[in-house]
Amino acid sequence: MGGPAGPSIHEAIAPLSFLLGTWRGTGEGSYPTIESFGYNEEVTFGHVGKPFLAYGQKTSHAETRLPLHAETGYWRAVSPDAGAIEVVLAHPTGILESLSGRFVPSPGGGTFDLSCPTIGLTDTAVSVTATERRFTIDGDRLTYEFSMAAVGHPMTHHLAATLHRV
Amino acid sequence: MGGPAGPSIHEAIAPLSFLLGTWRGTGEGSYPTIESFGYNEEVTFGHVGKPFLAYGQKTSHAETRLPLHAETGYWRAVSPDAGAIEVVLAHPTGILESLSGRFVPSPGGGTFDLSCPTIGLTDTAVSVTATERRFTIDGDRLTYEFSMAAVGHPMTHHLAATLHRV
Repeated sequence: MGGPAGPSIHEAIAPLSFLLGTWRGTGEGSYPTIESFGYNEEVTFGHVGKPFLAYGQKTSHAETRLPLHAETGYWRAVSPDAGAIEVVLAHPTGILESLSGRFVPSPGGGTFDLSCPTIGLTDTAVSVTATERRFTIDGDRLTYEFSMAAVGHPMTHHLAATLHRV
Repeated sequence: MGGPAGPSIHEAIAPLSFLLGTWRGTGEGSYPTIESFGYNEEVTFGHVGKPFLAYGQKTSHAETRLPLHAETGYWRAVSPDAGAIEVVLAHPTGILESLSGRFVPSPGGGTFDLSCPTIGLTDTAVSVTATERRFTIDGDRLTYEFSMAAVGHPMTHHLAATLHRV
């Protein structure tokens, strides 16, 4: 997935090359329907020389260390210079997110504001109807916030985490 | 992702444990709108002790060795004993597939017949409107066929490949 021996990064995705690598840290989750919880997280961004980044994410419970959530997908360079980004994600819970939004660069990286107004669901998936995500990268620090409308609740804060580049 | 030092496989997904591991092989692609091509492929199935398999796939051109397609997602144990399977996949081309279908076991593994009647697309994705996939596993041999309705064509054969367990 890139790296010293891998292919050069595609010019269309080069403005996002600060995302590449592995990030680890901790977060807190809450929602009106559940008890709040702490979690550990690992996020990876890779590339193969094409105009997208491969993205993977895994969390585990802060106390039990058992696996919690995971998601996998791609960040697409629609027009990163102009700030347009698309992200497609699959979740093991049967959820498919097609996020789009804006990238605003900063000296240390930038901020991504992404929203998914329509969720794809398998027949047996829990009812999540919309999501919003904000990622902010400043040097070796990645923070995000995640909100969702789910199980009858309107768009509500669910997750916040701070990760550092490994 | 499982293995000797990893967690035990979740009982709900245990009937599909023959999928676990890495598979490599070759395939042929065609479609009315493109020139036929040969490709090399690697498929991986892993697990973390929860009731799903993590799935990843990458292909490269048979001659140039350059990366072609990739996809990533999860196979969900809806009711594998009863033959019901769901698969969620994200593609770097901005396509999201929610496949469902049947698993018919055999002594050497079994056959999965999966269809995705409605595709999720980002605003800039190419127009794929439906897909069908058949995977057959017989011991250490995995074959699949993939058809799609795309760019105005009805459901049409696109890919066929034969892989072997590494």
